[in-house]
Amino acid sequence: MVQALVLEKKGELSLRDIDLPQEVGPDDVKIAIDTVGVCGSDVHYYTHGAIGSFVVREPMVLGHEAAGTIIAVGANVKNLKVGDRVCMEPGVPNMSSRATKLGIYNVDPDVRFWATPPIHGVLTPEVVHPAAFTYKLPNNVSFAEGAMVEPFAVGLQAATRARITPGDVAVVIGCGPIGIMTALAALAGGCARVYISDLSAPKLAIAGQYAGIHPVNITERALKDVIAEETEGWGADVVFEASGSPRAYDGIFDIVRPGGTLVLIGMPVEPTRFDVAAAIIKEARIETVFRYANNFDRAVNLIASGKVDLKPLISETFDFARSIEAFDRAAKGLPDDVKLQIKLRG
Amino acid sequence: MVQALVLEKKGELSLRDIDLPQEVGPDDVKIAIDTVGVCGSDVHYYTHGAIGSFVVREPMVLGHEAAGTIIAVGANVKNLKVGDRVCMEPGVPNMSSRATKLGIYNVDPDVRFWATPPIHGVLTPEVVHPAAFTYKLPNNVSFAEGAMVEPFAVGLQAATRARITPGDVAVVIGCGPIGIMTALAALAGGCARVYISDLSAPKLAIAGQYAGIHPVNITERALKDVIAEETEGWGADVVFEASGSPRAYDGIFDIVRPGGTLVLIGMPVEPTRFDVAAAIIKEARIETVFRYANNFDRAVNLIASGKVDLKPLISETFDFARSIEAFDRAAKGLPDDVKLQIKLRG
Amino acid sequence: MVQALVLEKKGELSLRDIDLPQEVGPDDVKIAIDTVGVCGSDVHYYTHGAIGSFVVREPMVLGHEAAGTIIAVGANVKNLKVGDRVCMEPGVPNMSSRATKLGIYNVDPDVRFWATPPIHGVLTPEVVHPAAFTYKLPNNVSFAEGAMVEPFAVGLQAATRARITPGDVAVVIGCGPIGIMTALAALAGGCARVYISDLSAPKLAIAGQYAGIHPVNITERALKDVIAEETEGWGADVVFEASGSPRAYDGIFDIVRPGGTLVLIGMPVEPTRFDVAAAIIKEARIETVFRYANNFDRAVNLIASGKVDLKPLISETFDFARSIEAFDRAAKGLPDDVKLQIKLRG
Amino acid sequence: MVQALVLEKKGELSLRDIDLPQEVGPDDVKIAIDTVGVCGSDVHYYTHGAIGSFVVREPMVLGHEAAGTIIAVGANVKNLKVGDRVCMEPGVPNMSSRATKLGIYNVDPDVRFWATPPIHGVLTPEVVHPAAFTYKLPNNVSFAEGAMVEPFAVGLQAATRARITPGDVAVVIGCGPIGIMTALAALAGGCARVYISDLSAPKLAIAGQYAGIHPVNITERALKDVIAEETEGWGADVVFEASGSPRAYDGIFDIVRPGGTLVLIGMPVEPTRFDVAAAIIKEARIETVFRYANNFDRAVNLIASGKVDLKPLISETFDFARSIEAFDRAAKGLPDDVKLQIKLRG
Repeated sequence: MVQALVLEKKGELSLRDIDLPQEVGPDDVKIAIDTVGVCGSDVHYYTHGAIGSFVVREPMVLGHEAAGTIIAVGANVKNLKVGDRVCMEPGVPNMSSRATKLGIYNVDPDVRFWATPPIHGVLTPEVVHPAAFTYKLPNNVSFAEGAMVEPFAVGLQAATRARITPGDVAVVIGCGPIGIMTALAALAGGCARVYISDLSAPKLAIAGQYAGIHPVNITERALKDVIAEETEGWGADVVFEASGSPRAYDGIFDIVRPGGTLVLIGMPVEPTRFDVAAAIIKEARIETVFRYANNFDRAVNLIASGKVDLKPLISETFDFARSIEAFDRAAKGLPDDVKLQIKLRG
Repeated sequence: MVQALVLEKKGELSLRDIDLPQEVGPDDVKIAIDTVGVCGSDVHYYTHGAIGSFVVREPMVLGHEAAGTIIAVGANVKNLKVGDRVCMEPGVPNMSSRATKLGIYNVDPDVRFWATPPIHGVLTPEVVHPAAFTYKLPNNVSFAEGAMVEPFAVGLQAATRARITPGDVAVVIGCGPIGIMTALAALAGGCARVYISDLSAPKLAIAGQYAGIHPVNITERALKDVIAEETEGWGADVVFEASGSPRAYDGIFDIVRPGGTLVLIGMPVEPTRFDVAAAIIKEARIETVFRYANNFDRAVNLIASGKVDLKPLISETFDFARSIEAFDRAAKGLPDDVKLQIKLRG
Repeated sequence: MVQALVLEKKGELSLRDIDLPQEVGPDDVKIAIDTVGVCGSDVHYYTHGAIGSFVVREPMVLGHEAAGTIIAVGANVKNLKVGDRVCMEPGVPNMSSRATKLGIYNVDPDVRFWATPPIHGVLTPEVVHPAAFTYKLPNNVSFAEGAMVEPFAVGLQAATRARITPGDVAVVIGCGPIGIMTALAALAGGCARVYISDLSAPKLAIAGQYAGIHPVNITERALKDVIAEETEGWGADVVFEASGSPRAYDGIFDIVRPGGTLVLIGMPVEPTRFDVAAAIIKEARIETVFRYANNFDRAVNLIASGKVDLKPLISETFDFARSIEAFDRAAKGLPDDVKLQIKLRG
Repeated sequence: MVQALVLEKKGELSLRDIDLPQEVGPDDVKIAIDTVGVCGSDVHYYTHGAIGSFVVREPMVLGHEAAGTIIAVGANVKNLKVGDRVCMEPGVPNMSSRATKLGIYNVDPDVRFWATPPIHGVLTPEVVHPAAFTYKLPNNVSFAEGAMVEPFAVGLQAATRARITPGDVAVVIGCGPIGIMTALAALAGGCARVYISDLSAPKLAIAGQYAGIHPVNITERALKDVIAEETEGWGADVVFEASGSPRAYDGIFDIVRPGGTLVLIGMPVEPTRFDVAAAIIKEARIETVFRYANNFDRAVNLIASGKVDLKPLISETFDFARSIEAFDRAAKGLPDDVKLQIKLRG
């Protein structure tokens, strides 16, 4: 029995003992968890008890954005050793599946993903995980930053799928945590500048701290007009939709340049009205992003090199004992909060 | 004054004399038109007087699928000579535009396209055109086939944008002329086999004549079930939407494999309900197709080599004098008719 | 102890009993081998005892191009069942390696490949193999064709790495088995036509049987001249180097079009003189091919659909008892022989 | 007659009057030149009288890295107006050629390129150029930076052809001006960090000023060892060869990761020994770079946004009257000199 933050059912969290597997297989490592970020999906399970077809039917440990220190390694593990500081990729596919063999293990239908029912998450002091999905952190990357690799990896997957040409101009629609991560990844991934749009001035102010990110408050000016002006009427090379709002799709191809790209990250709850003819007339390419594959190492590289600084996005850190408080704060969705983290070790 | 098939206004065609420019510039050729295909867009201007924002406000010569013989060449023209048998690309961009410099001249906003108001088409005996958009036909490609290059180029653009991996399995939704062209291009372009779906048994019978094209009559069986069965539940690598029907979008990602591709060719009249979340969960790529660029030479290559046989799709050929009859027949949309052509020379 | 064709040492083959592992692990299948092709690498180990740094130091079973029937399946295997007719991918990577996770398991340094010292091959009646690298054959694909999937997969990898645009014109240098496989894959994979060059008239005659493959005998005419003539001086879109001859590199960029692609398949024994400036002036892309990854299913699709007919390439079939005779024949390298096969079951 | 820096013949420069065309065609602009950079190719024509097959047979104006101000515009020009500050792309293709239509106008055989015999360069106060190859400079980009766009565009072309995945690790071989430009473009274009190697400590010190660029002095340590250590034995994702030295090719694939990319920029004078087998075993992709296409706008974007700072690379600026002195200094090839510029206006 180990202590963990357990979602008992919709709306009810406990910090209590629970029985979790602790056996280290030959390809596994055991990690002493140091820091875990609070993700919108964790919060959504807490407040709604389900995301789409994933329903919390039994008590489930939350948390999937994590960093820590290796405390045991399996017999076959060569790339990691006890004492290594690491972050972990929370989804583990069937290693023999067709999707995994293709290198797109993120879309393997059999992926087991932390804190997605019925798989337990990692808000608990010690966790066993395959070495293949555990990534070493350089000395100059803190645990707090290590626990940001997971959400940044979503932005990085978006930047990768966009196939940015160096010097592109990008737009990110939606200035939530994933929107900001996407803007940072797009900049680090080759864009010359990124416009980010939202209705919330405080969110835009946080994004606007970064050189190269230009906030657009759509309560003040139409995004279409800003982009037309900033690109001499040509449009943006890449538009990232990170709001998940169906309204974002109205006129979205007006801001994409001829032959440009739209990348869909935000997942609207309902089917969305989509102007196919507008996409066709621009001969736009539309990419979609589902989690990430093969980019935790790249994310760590970008953080370690200083090209991407995620520290300003950590709004507050809670001790493990205050985990429930952290979730209640996250559930409020304060506009100034980007990322709340829970620290399991002193 | 030259004779031409003129759309006087919605619903009214005349075969009459009209004044058309005949001057051959230094980069131009003059072509004696031999054969012109009747396209759905020509017919639509005839029956509706407009397509979207393109409205027939003055008499306009119809026809943009054409082949003929060079009868004059401009001073700078080196790649063509009098007597060459040729087909022509009907859209001419601004050669200095940003899109053109990028190689995507099809999305240049300033493209001038035959038989798109206010630009005249080519149902007339002699036409002047830039040499750069005029393509030589090998001896074993007939004028009738040459006049099929234009619609085939749409299918070929779809196959190109799909980025087919050799041996892919494809689905084409919609068995009209463009659907069949797309199926043929997908097969010639590397697919192992292509399923094509429609409600019309006669149309499917025509497509089913080709080895490698498998008709699916969706009045008999759900496309989703057929594809699941034929791909062991994995889905198709590439799905081409060539029907333009909003209903085709219902559950369309059920037939795309994880990491697969959807190519949008058909242009629905209205914005369409689109299941963004379903696209994202598969991390599908969505490409769109607007006309074509840089593929007339490739289309001619595929026809000349025998890899693509378009002759079975020519349903009937009319003399120039019977042009209006050809259009009236086309306007009926008989299910057995794929392509009607008009022959201007004996 | 099971019977097998054993390479005792350089120059010495025995058909004798040997001890091979027969245990079926949970992710494995056991296959009753029906047909095995004789590959140039098998023959090279027989005649030279080594390929590069791979040296035969202990007796080794030969054979890696195989098809057969499933006779046992492990507990976790879902995609295959007893009685299924199958072919097998001979290289098995470390499933958790960095390369494998990227989908490029062919370049995993830890790949274990049949009949590559010290790994045994499959010229033996029963073989255990991971289900993930075992592919079902449709009813219309014979075992003989199934045993051709492996060499065809090399050609298909070349066609895939080329990123053919539908309608491309290709050249294959070298008309050995891999050259012909590459030509067939290039055609099936989207090329309009393929020129194949060699010094040997009989080899070219075999390739020339296929519609779309045009033999060029370079004892009669320079390849450069033929390609210039056939492409109006523009050059080929894709050139595949499948001869492994250093001489092929002399002037090779003369036959590549501006912006075209060179694909390197043949492995010269020594470093080669390479005209970097000529490559740069054309801004050519150069791809290389190492075995294959993720294409056995595509290869089977193309054979099953009839787009690729490998049967004319099977020169002769030997009973298992005559295996050594088959190898002695292969060692002669007769120009009329493309592929010799050994049949283990009646 | 206008004043210009004229290369009379090998080794002889004059600042004298010469007759140059000054007529502004309908698609042209006339530019008052402000700043021109001295390029290695200019210097090479001065010191050697030829580069490859391009031989100086008549007096030729030098200079092709230029920025200035629009002083006249042709009738068709819409994107530029008198007074705009601009930089110019020195190569003008045949706008109707096959390569240009494909968007790869840099490999059009008919390109006319400034200061490449027999085409005059722009070390002269006023120049006429097509508007399509003239790019507006934002206010925060100086003329000196504008005249650096051309050499930076070569690095940017390399970064583009590399198809960097965000977070890649890159190596640049050769720390001359183009090597540094490539390193900067690779970083701005998505790499997490770049190692640059050379024999010259002063050159490496200049490159090492930039965050993210790590100098490797190969007189002290083998590049192979450094990269192995820095990538845990995996190798670099992208290696750029910018030295043009045949020796750089020895063991070059040892530093490329499995499935990685080599980009060839430097042009060796002679054919080079190339280890094809080493490339194949890694299944490396090799790209080549010839000048640039479609990236001056992207280069300007990156400079304007502050992502790329070229100012530290401008070693000294000479008045127009001291042009010959500038060339004599450049001909010395001082290790501390990256870029010398000539200023035509006060």
